[in-house]
Amino acid sequence: MSGEKFRSISAADFFYKNKEIAGFDNSVRATYTIMRELIENALDACEQYSIPPEVRVKLIDEGNSIYKLKVEDNGIGVPYEQVPYAFAQILFGSKYTLRQSRGIFGLGGKMAILYGQITAHSTVKVTSSTGGFEKYSYELNINIQENRPVIRKKEVMPNPGRWRGTIVQFSFEGDYIRAKPKVVEYFKQTSILLPYANLLYVDPDGVLYRFDRITDVMPKPAEEVQPHPHGIDVEGVQRMINASRSSTMQDFMANNFHRVGVATALNFLKSIKIDPQANPKTLQSKELLTLVSGMKDYDQFQPPDAQCLSPIGTDLLKAGIMREFKPEFVAVTQRGASAYSGYPFIVESAIAYGGDIPIAPPDEMSVFRYANKIPLLYDLHSDVAMKVIKKINWQRYRLDLSTMPVAFFIHICATKVPYKTVGKEYIADRPEVEYEIEWALKTCAREVKMHLARKEKASIVQRRLTVFEKYLPLISQFATELAGVEKQPNVEKVLKRLQTHAKEVEQGSFVEAK
Amino acid sequence: MSGEKFRSISAADFFYKNKEIAGFDNSVRATYTIMRELIENALDACEQYSIPPEVRVKLIDEGNSIYKLKVEDNGIGVPYEQVPYAFAQILFGSKYTLRQSRGIFGLGGKMAILYGQITAHSTVKVTSSTGGFEKYSYELNINIQENRPVIRKKEVMPNPGRWRGTIVQFSFEGDYIRAKPKVVEYFKQTSILLPYANLLYVDPDGVLYRFDRITDVMPKPAEEVQPHPHGIDVEGVQRMINASRSSTMQDFMANNFHRVGVATALNFLKSIKIDPQANPKTLQSKELLTLVSGMKDYDQFQPPDAQCLSPIGTDLLKAGIMREFKPEFVAVTQRGASAYSGYPFIVESAIAYGGDIPIAPPDEMSVFRYANKIPLLYDLHSDVAMKVIKKINWQRYRLDLSTMPVAFFIHICATKVPYKTVGKEYIADRPEVEYEIEWALKTCAREVKMHLARKEKASIVQRRLTVFEKYLPLISQFATELAGVEKQPNVEKVLKRLQTHAKEVEQGSFVEAK
Repeated sequence: MSGEKFRSISAADFFYKNKEIAGFDNSVRATYTIMRELIENALDACEQYSIPPEVRVKLIDEGNSIYKLKVEDNGIGVPYEQVPYAFAQILFGSKYTLRQSRGIFGLGGKMAILYGQITAHSTVKVTSSTGGFEKYSYELNINIQENRPVIRKKEVMPNPGRWRGTIVQFSFEGDYIRAKPKVVEYFKQTSILLPYANLLYVDPDGVLYRFDRITDVMPKPAEEVQPHPHGIDVEGVQRMINASRSSTMQDFMANNFHRVGVATALNFLKSIKIDPQANPKTLQSKELLTLVSGMKDYDQFQPPDAQCLSPIGTDLLKAGIMREFKPEFVAVTQRGASAYSGYPFIVESAIAYGGDIPIAPPDEMSVFRYANKIPLLYDLHSDVAMKVIKKINWQRYRLDLSTMPVAFFIHICATKVPYKTVGKEYIADRPEVEYEIEWALKTCAREVKMHLARKEKASIVQRRLTVFEKYLPLISQFATELAGVEKQPNVEKVLKRLQTHAKEVEQGSFVEAK
Repeated sequence: MSGEKFRSISAADFFYKNKEIAGFDNSVRATYTIMRELIENALDACEQYSIPPEVRVKLIDEGNSIYKLKVEDNGIGVPYEQVPYAFAQILFGSKYTLRQSRGIFGLGGKMAILYGQITAHSTVKVTSSTGGFEKYSYELNINIQENRPVIRKKEVMPNPGRWRGTIVQFSFEGDYIRAKPKVVEYFKQTSILLPYANLLYVDPDGVLYRFDRITDVMPKPAEEVQPHPHGIDVEGVQRMINASRSSTMQDFMANNFHRVGVATALNFLKSIKIDPQANPKTLQSKELLTLVSGMKDYDQFQPPDAQCLSPIGTDLLKAGIMREFKPEFVAVTQRGASAYSGYPFIVESAIAYGGDIPIAPPDEMSVFRYANKIPLLYDLHSDVAMKVIKKINWQRYRLDLSTMPVAFFIHICATKVPYKTVGKEYIADRPEVEYEIEWALKTCAREVKMHLARKEKASIVQRRLTVFEKYLPLISQFATELAGVEKQPNVEKVLKRLQTHAKEVEQGSFVEAK
């Protein structure tokens, strides 16, 4: 530390000066990140309230590398008085609770708006309604140095149709030509995981991309939960104690932690020799440390449960993959809930074979990675999923990745995704996560292996059938002639039986007798 | 965006909840990051004021995975009234000016202290003096929810010896056993680049690591500069206009931008058709956009100069490498200043051969990466330096990396290092940076090639000399006998000439006649 002039800067100013860490490295990356962040907010506003998403996105080229983005959703809407803060103040949001959602910081959307302001001097126009008699529209800027919203214009209008949702609109300097492949890929991959969403995108050339829903079934939304004792630190416990009205430690434990009841609290407190009747507010610094390290080590707590998660489910995942790739075969699996440092997570995965799936070029693989329903399109080779795929001996599953049309799908949902960067590029290498991914993929791989074995067997049976079909009538004819009788035996019946058998083998419904 | 409860959170709270992005992934990584951040602050407090650094670090194992860290420097000291903010308020600091320094956000040290607080319930004890009649000592906490310092204790003491510097002390939960290799490597690599620093480290086992300075020469400290017009955005220009007292655009340009004088300003403004006599405060939104995009595109601005940088210099780099590895040969080079989006940077590099440098195991390479004098020990394979090393055809330079003892050293100094993460792990892939690294390494490689050629030639000459030394006396003897004379010719003179030649070839001082 040094003796020169010090000053405080606002959170907005910090992220303005360090936009790389939020995925705004350059104008190509910024274009992709801006679109992604806005779409994610739109989807979260629907899904968390079980509203089947209708998201419309339009990007207009305004010349001089300036683009205007408009994103419209049919989500829950933002209350009138919250709009300025929800869109023009950094570190202000709703996404700080413990449950699964796309956003990690509620930061991305505002960084996108900030980027528009600093590159294109753009205001953001927000129109929203929670479905009441009124809808309202704001034009906002961010005062970056002070991190507060500046309202340039606001308007309240009647809402006779009781429309509900949010429309966000602003301009930014970007490079869509070079960002386009990633943007289109983003829509495609998002639609795979969200077969219950209608996505519409009109690109700057006026080309329409649409992904129509094929089901009305939605995964159940994630619920908020209390923190699990395995994932808490001193600061967290101190805050809970300050906020708590419990007069005994036993009560405090039972009221504030996920999966801790009165009995568990009592046993735990006894095990670390803290008086269950003690008042939490009188806890000494040393006892607090004992309490927290005890919570980390105590192995009798129930593991976190998954009600705070919203996995996509095997049926929806399969449906999405079928719609996009029409594979010959797809194996889908969902692992049970697991946890890392107190954060519950679930891994879902699929392996698809054949159909529209291409054979991957050398040194590449078709890996579709998702975290809390967000497709991850960058930094595949740093991701834990890739590490697992490289580790597995695929030949054991009759798979040769360099010559066969195989694609991998991995979805991690967690109350906190262990990202390495604010830009949500890739997943850090947690052993618990690695383990779950490995077993999810191996489970799918076993099914694919069975499918391939079946297919091979069916082709042998089919070949045999072809031989029979060719020669059986002849043999029957010769035999008839030799025997000197006139009526040939009925070959058709035999052939039909063989054909049925071949079909059964192919569909896997034939079970061989031992 | 959704209609649920919103709230604002403090910057401290944000980083508390997202400590991974600052390099605090787990207790091993945290141990390394905490030590590194504190040492970097200590070094910056010395070097920026041309004080040869004396940094003493002590880590004490307090049991139960709790460690106490003490870092002492002889730097400029922190003024009395600034101490609480400099150590216990996030996003408050001095490091927001445009010049080279280790810290990117002034964030790391405070994150370390915050981590100590949330894992070990530790206060931070800071003792400092700017060298006056008093020294002072604080015990501080961070109020994380409100992001403000809490003073637990403070004391002012006489400072008869006029001691100047800072001592920081706090505890944290860590895992030194597993962090140790990285920590020791960090000290070693830091000492290579800082041969003018005394570094002392006492580890938890009481083992003393010391790196003594071998020179009093220090690189000149970096100076602060104004932003270059190529690297500015709308927000930046708007702020400058708000703060400016210039009444004309020409004046405004000449007073606020690096490398822009009155004449350049006039030519530039004419080229984008903005009236040089216009008052900057009356600029319309559209003109502001024209101005900023014009500044990016105008190619008549002088490139940024390097006074804001503090490269280590070829002599010091060489000295550091010699001390550590005693190589048979080392080639060192410094490139001229270059720039990416308006940020000046300089690449220095070295290739060392032989001596204590080991032959790298397959698939690994000895690559020492530095950014603004910080050794980068993680994520080598994502770093732009590695990309360049893989790209160069080393056989052209007679180098076989798998069988030869070769090490690469790359130092980038910049007013803004293009890191990918807050944790300062690796350098993003900027084409300008890639280009400079490539040519720096190729320049060194040419010298190494010459050395190896010389060495080979010397070994041929040496072999010939051995033959001569063996047979010349015999031949001379036979010849003498054959000729029937008594006195042998003086072979010594011939041999001496050959020996001198061999030495010249080996040292490279022999220049062959064409």
